[in-house]
Amino acid sequence: MLTKWVHTLIDNLVRSGVRDFVISPGSRSTPLAIAAFLHPSSRTHVLVDERSASFFALGLTRTDDALRPVALICTSGTAATNYYSAVTEANIFELPLIVLTADRPHELRGVGAPQAIDQVGLYGKQVRHAFDLPLPEETGLTYVQHVARRAALLAMTEPAGPVQINVPLREPLIPELDLLQTGQSVGRPLRAIAPSLSEELSEILSIPRLLIVIGPQLSATDTQFILDYAERSHIPVLADPLSQGRQSSYATVFGYYDTWLKDETVQQKVRPEHILRFGAMPTSKPYLLWSKDIPTTVVGHPGNWRDPQLHAEFLSGHPSQLQAMPETAHDVSYLHTLQAAEQTVAVVFETLDTEQLTEYNVVRALDVLTQGSLFVSNSMPIRDLDTFLPTGTPLRILANRGANGIDGIVSSALGATYDADHRYLLVGDLAFIHDINGLMMARTRPMTILLINNTGGGIFNFLPQQTLDPAVFEPLFGTAQELDFRHLASGYGVDYELISSIPDLKTALQTTPVATRILEIRTDRPKNVRLHRRIWELTNQALQERFR
Amino acid sequence: MLTKWVHTLIDNLVRSGVRDFVISPGSRSTPLAIAAFLHPSSRTHVLVDERSASFFALGLTRTDDALRPVALICTSGTAATNYYSAVTEANIFELPLIVLTADRPHELRGVGAPQAIDQVGLYGKQVRHAFDLPLPEETGLTYVQHVARRAALLAMTEPAGPVQINVPLREPLIPELDLLQTGQSVGRPLRAIAPSLSEELSEILSIPRLLIVIGPQLSATDTQFILDYAERSHIPVLADPLSQGRQSSYATVFGYYDTWLKDETVQQKVRPEHILRFGAMPTSKPYLLWSKDIPTTVVGHPGNWRDPQLHAEFLSGHPSQLQAMPETAHDVSYLHTLQAAEQTVAVVFETLDTEQLTEYNVVRALDVLTQGSLFVSNSMPIRDLDTFLPTGTPLRILANRGANGIDGIVSSALGATYDADHRYLLVGDLAFIHDINGLMMARTRPMTILLINNTGGGIFNFLPQQTLDPAVFEPLFGTAQELDFRHLASGYGVDYELISSIPDLKTALQTTPVATRILEIRTDRPKNVRLHRRIWELTNQALQERFR
Repeated sequence: MLTKWVHTLIDNLVRSGVRDFVISPGSRSTPLAIAAFLHPSSRTHVLVDERSASFFALGLTRTDDALRPVALICTSGTAATNYYSAVTEANIFELPLIVLTADRPHELRGVGAPQAIDQVGLYGKQVRHAFDLPLPEETGLTYVQHVARRAALLAMTEPAGPVQINVPLREPLIPELDLLQTGQSVGRPLRAIAPSLSEELSEILSIPRLLIVIGPQLSATDTQFILDYAERSHIPVLADPLSQGRQSSYATVFGYYDTWLKDETVQQKVRPEHILRFGAMPTSKPYLLWSKDIPTTVVGHPGNWRDPQLHAEFLSGHPSQLQAMPETAHDVSYLHTLQAAEQTVAVVFETLDTEQLTEYNVVRALDVLTQGSLFVSNSMPIRDLDTFLPTGTPLRILANRGANGIDGIVSSALGATYDADHRYLLVGDLAFIHDINGLMMARTRPMTILLINNTGGGIFNFLPQQTLDPAVFEPLFGTAQELDFRHLASGYGVDYELISSIPDLKTALQTTPVATRILEIRTDRPKNVRLHRRIWELTNQALQERFR
Repeated sequence: MLTKWVHTLIDNLVRSGVRDFVISPGSRSTPLAIAAFLHPSSRTHVLVDERSASFFALGLTRTDDALRPVALICTSGTAATNYYSAVTEANIFELPLIVLTADRPHELRGVGAPQAIDQVGLYGKQVRHAFDLPLPEETGLTYVQHVARRAALLAMTEPAGPVQINVPLREPLIPELDLLQTGQSVGRPLRAIAPSLSEELSEILSIPRLLIVIGPQLSATDTQFILDYAERSHIPVLADPLSQGRQSSYATVFGYYDTWLKDETVQQKVRPEHILRFGAMPTSKPYLLWSKDIPTTVVGHPGNWRDPQLHAEFLSGHPSQLQAMPETAHDVSYLHTLQAAEQTVAVVFETLDTEQLTEYNVVRALDVLTQGSLFVSNSMPIRDLDTFLPTGTPLRILANRGANGIDGIVSSALGATYDADHRYLLVGDLAFIHDINGLMMARTRPMTILLINNTGGGIFNFLPQQTLDPAVFEPLFGTAQELDFRHLASGYGVDYELISSIPDLKTALQTTPVATRILEIRTDRPKNVRLHRRIWELTNQALQERFR
């Protein structure tokens, strides 16, 4: 019965779209792990640290442009609690994670048995649904089928997200291996629901001075529908790096707005009648501040609200709608104003020093990359990338931009770029160390990790905390760690190189790695703040001259 | 208002018994972190990885024999989800953890704001209570006082456990530092409730052939009450290493029962009329199997059930009661039978080879330690220690024995032994790597880490999984990690030594370390299983001869 039970569960998950199973070793989960491992159509990945494993799985949901549900398998007890961060990120960032938590049988719950915690509904409000299977028995097989398919359907339906299936099992825990390899399949997967479409979209598209904004979280295909429509209709588009819109070279697409929206004159000149936003709120803080009193419509689904300014209209719709829509006429002078701002910033950026080992120059050095996937950590790297990455950059840019945590970054990157031929991670020292155990998954395929080591919490040097007495600031916010990344790399068996100049970095980036490597780039927190300030001064000055 | 608000919260926690605050850096938590840091009666510890931080805090709750509430501080977002494992362990192992989760204000919840997740009741059923404070305002100050005191009271009252206080805060987040250092205190802490006592205890104590069992989780003081009473009344006591009873040299205390209860003849000979158990179910599996049909009474409190066999009577009571109780008469021949069994095993253990680098010999080598605290990891180390550690061992033995996870071990050890002059950790390679980030807290004070590296999940070689085909066993259960611990040690700035023999290990243990050091002991999984089997053969043979 045990074998049939776990086969039904795993097989129906596979037939509903799950390919990857990320497993952390344990005893109670034995039959699930073996069933996943032996299934002829599965890929399995094993990682001892469940927290890293869960972020690796989170990454794997988006190795392609289309999302794919990924399953996690762990044993009973606190193992499952280590998934909580990734489950929360999956909830907010809408990624289809299916969490299979092996559990002790009912009579061992809440009575002091080892590795028995209350796992039913462990993830509270962070999951789309939490299923709790009964113990294996013949009558329940239909229900197992139903749960597997429904979990996949729920995980993939907008808003996509995490689902828990709690699987209590009694000993003995060893299934029959032959049966798992040859086990028959039954039934067919449930069909996904198409996203709802909006009828009012065309009204908004005909507003003459319209601005389109694409935030994080869209697929590149969806983004392309928007970009093509905007190009045809001469509507300017602000493209967050996580929208994949920065890959475009259309003259209607903008990437430097984080800089030009810092200038008050420009803020007025580029003010649209209306903003039409697809995806989540963009990374840029100047955009957030500037747009808060501009009439805005957000297109999406109501299951996950994405309007922290609490002022937008909401339209239930989808970018694919734009394919069939007739182009609309727009105020071209508005487009030209934005182009002038973009051009002004571009000129300043091109005249800046490109040799110094600074965060700015690291982002600009990425222009030697002509293909591949780049995962970007939260905190400073995503902000620097947002500010300094030009349009026309041919990289797939990825990040965990649901709850914006610095946890699980290494694993998420390794998962999200798992099937990419060229893969890169841009990460700071604190986020890197937080998920250093992700490196246990780094051997399978080479990745280049650009590690910006500013010895501590660089972001705080930009925040009001910087005004604190150093006796309070350094222990609580600076938090220099004194870690030796060369040795840490050796410890996990990955390569390491200390980068001493930007030309060296470019050379390294142009070399194809044979194994995962860490390129450590040491920078200085206060110097970095001064450089950023200097860049803003220069761009503001240039924008003032251009627009006065 | 912000300053007064956070001062009231932190000050009332301190005045209710909190001394240690474990902080992970973040922006939203700034005022809480600063208030804790500047409080004249606090100790603060900063650790970037929230998961390790929470286990470090868990450890700090028991630096002394008496529990003390410890507070955690983190920023908003997934930071707080990293605490989940330690919160769960605190729940089941009854340790007083107070979790302060900084939160975004209400208008930024569930609307797509960055680092905003649903934090209210984040830990579900794992906490004693979850408080959600309002935003700072004058009228609410009395409530803040109340919450701080009540959280401490709840965390400390039987069953002790974790409490969450969610603290939403609006920007600006920098408090007035002068006020925090000189801020006045108001009110007084709530008084703890005394444990309830049993009237029926004396009836059970007068059963002639009575066996007392002390499981994990008692304080050494409580254990001493039991041991003294049993010694006076000639009642045999089986002492789990985590009861601190193994420190005793009383002839009524037994430590080798895990071995002699494996023998069927002995199982019959030592069968008591009744078992009186204090604390949780002991670690020993032979004890669990043997005792399941012996009438048992568990003394404790009903808030946390500890009878996985589902057969015991329950008495609400406390070991301190035994102080005042008159001694009772018991069947001394029963005590002598247990002493014969213990003696037989002791003789075999003394004749075993002591030079080979095996798990057995590592535990036995601990006899060179004459003082200090030893934290023991879950999975194999606690089992080996339970089996092979004799009574009369003058070490304080600690472990996470609530949910028995292998997560957070390094941090828990560093926390639990923080105030000890001599401190040791016995840990396997997988548990060690799982919480390697705990090493960021290892610089403050030296600890000796005995790292048993059997390259993977040694416990599975003892379980039914071992019968699987190596092509399934090794990737899913063996999981060799190929980690270089020498380099990892250097990466975190701690010392390292590869131990090549048991005499070398003893020499190293007799040297006082100047900094935290890892003593790596490489062992072989299959060889270890064979040695354990050989020891059981020898002891069973000796017991058969003695008792036939």
